Amino acid sequence: MLVGTGSGGIRTKGRDDVAVFAGAHPMPTAATFTRNNFAAAPVTIARQHLRGGRSQAWLVNSGNANCGTGKRGLATASSSCAHLGQALGIPATQVIPFSTGVIMEPLSAARLHAGCDVAASRLQPGNWRAAAKAIMTTDTVAKGASVQLRAKGGKVTLTGIAKGSGMIHPNMATMLAFLATDADVPLSWLRTQLRTSVAASFNRISVDGDTSTNDATILAATGMAGKQSATELKRLAQALEEMCRELAQAVVRDGEGATTTATVTVTGLASDQACRAVADAIACSPLIKTMLHARDANLGRLLMAIGKAPVACQPEAVTIKIHGLTAFSNGQRAARFTENVASRLMRKDPVTIAINAGPAKTEASCMFCDLGPGYIKINAEYRS
Amino acid sequence: MLVGTGSGGIRTKGRDDVAVFAGAHPMPTAATFTRNNFAAAPVTIARQHLRGGRSQAWLVNSGNANCGTGKRGLATASSSCAHLGQALGIPATQVIPFSTGVIMEPLSAARLHAGCDVAASRLQPGNWRAAAKAIMTTDTVAKGASVQLRAKGGKVTLTGIAKGSGMIHPNMATMLAFLATDADVPLSWLRTQLRTSVAASFNRISVDGDTSTNDATILAATGMAGKQSATELKRLAQALEEMCRELAQAVVRDGEGATTTATVTVTGLASDQACRAVADAIACSPLIKTMLHARDANLGRLLMAIGKAPVACQPEAVTIKIHGLTAFSNGQRAARFTENVASRLMRKDPVTIAINAGPAKTEASCMFCDLGPGYIKINAEYRS
Repeated sequence: MLVGTGSGGIRTKGRDDVAVFAGAHPMPTAATFTRNNFAAAPVTIARQHLRGGRSQAWLVNSGNANCGTGKRGLATASSSCAHLGQALGIPATQVIPFSTGVIMEPLSAARLHAGCDVAASRLQPGNWRAAAKAIMTTDTVAKGASVQLRAKGGKVTLTGIAKGSGMIHPNMATMLAFLATDADVPLSWLRTQLRTSVAASFNRISVDGDTSTNDATILAATGMAGKQSATELKRLAQALEEMCRELAQAVVRDGEGATTTATVTVTGLASDQACRAVADAIACSPLIKTMLHARDANLGRLLMAIGKAPVACQPEAVTIKIHGLTAFSNGQRAARFTENVASRLMRKDPVTIAINAGPAKTEASCMFCDLGPGYIKINAEYRS
Repeated sequence: MLVGTGSGGIRTKGRDDVAVFAGAHPMPTAATFTRNNFAAAPVTIARQHLRGGRSQAWLVNSGNANCGTGKRGLATASSSCAHLGQALGIPATQVIPFSTGVIMEPLSAARLHAGCDVAASRLQPGNWRAAAKAIMTTDTVAKGASVQLRAKGGKVTLTGIAKGSGMIHPNMATMLAFLATDADVPLSWLRTQLRTSVAASFNRISVDGDTSTNDATILAATGMAGKQSATELKRLAQALEEMCRELAQAVVRDGEGATTTATVTVTGLASDQACRAVADAIACSPLIKTMLHARDANLGRLLMAIGKAPVACQPEAVTIKIHGLTAFSNGQRAARFTENVASRLMRKDPVTIAINAGPAKTEASCMFCDLGPGYIKINAEYRS
């Protein structure tokens, strides 16, 4: 996979804001997209272009989401694929477009094409880090990972980058993530493994409960490293899930204004979905998130958040543990869970919260960050 | 209705933290309570005591929510009713208890009783303002209202106070509100009018999307002003709804750290419930609330919030108006809605947002406040 970046001056002059990824031939490609009803123009085009399950190039811009931009926005997303396709000598439908940035602002096709031309002229192997930087918006660090697995036929590589900091909520791949492997694997394997990995990673994080209109995760296999044995495929699938988890955690840690993180696991309610509703209520509660920011042990707020979830839940059946220590059971605070103990536990990062609400074998978890002045500062000033 | 306040030193020494309301006889009484699964002990006892639809006294404390406090908490709520009942010479079941403050901390029965004794010894007419102060937690202003309506038999008075600043979300009376009239009206009238009024007021506000475990609104009729004609009852019902709306708006304006407010009205989706889901998604979105704080016109965030609501909604069918001016229609930003125009409109208070998403005669609205550094400061430091 070759990667190149360039500047189109889409929002800020001078910085690279376009990234191009290109393979040597059409590759089997799986992707997941936002569930937001206002999906951006590039998401609509990407879905169309991926109907056949193959792609040869990806075109990404930051600085403008190309969302809420009507027919002109769709035309821009389409024409940018044709533009890059022409430069690379491949059909427009083999190019998958992605955008991230301000919503409801027209995206200049001229600027996107200009940045695309520069990026395409700079394509080279191993250039993922530059792309990880080019796709950043409010992110403060570039997020990427790469692993090599030994295989009979030599070695197999899996590389991925992601961006995401605000508008992060686990409702399908809330961010942009680009993943590629040189294994020779079929489309069905990619689709299954991406779905499983995203469910266990990007769909289990929350920064602010807001769901972007542009979220996408894409995974392609170049095939350069040849076929893999069943055992090797299993290890590759594990590596993929681990990488997605690592990138997702990097997104939460780089959550807008975040200074610390927490994980919550909910078990025992009637369904996984009910557990998820409670985990989400906690992960999205401003009062829990400000408590986390202050490293304060005002844990009664956990009861409030558990109780507000619209699910059947008996307070008497609820046990809350913080770092394995029982804080609440039988309808009241545990005697041994003193203020001193609680304050000490709240200073760890991540704070691990385990909630059991019954005997059912159900489970959901979520990783989230605190809400501090940094989030306000970034989001009250992002556009200026 | 007589009102008295006193200090029990429940959380802070010196300030009045207990309020007692007492009528001359058992009064028809209607109430609404939190829908949070972790309803506090006083809510449980209040529901039991109100089964007969009558009450003679109300006992409120701030500083401790008596929630997540197990059997001991229930015993404290019960015994405090007996304690006040004994002082007033009425059955415990005629006393309705309310608490607000920190969750999951044991509430000292001794302190509550002490404050109750002082409050009961100071009962006097027209003392609502002192009670409005005594029930404050993070509130910065006491909230109350009183109106007098002319009637054939003389005049009818309606008086109400409320507290609420954080943990405010429209999911049944998210706060404490105490209302009384001297009209002689039946229980069924009180119940119907309170339900209607709460639906149009306290259930249409949001500060942070969090739902308190202790929310309650209560309305009693002393009957001192005698029976009302049908026309007079209609005017009283209107006055009640207006008062609830006024108190609810006062809660939002006093939302923790709030510097400005907005109202959102959603129409045209398949059901009122669907409209409500979109209104809530907007009112609770941290990105919308920080935008409001900055008086920034980054209105693409509205698309994000509309789109993330889990309802069927076609972007092409959506029209957004800000203060009556079309900002978005036909899938794109309105040409006349320039940055300058938008910035000017965002400086008004409240900002009025109208969203239409189809021809159906459905509707929901919500009033909410901005999210600024003040909210963080209050909630990261509340207990210390």
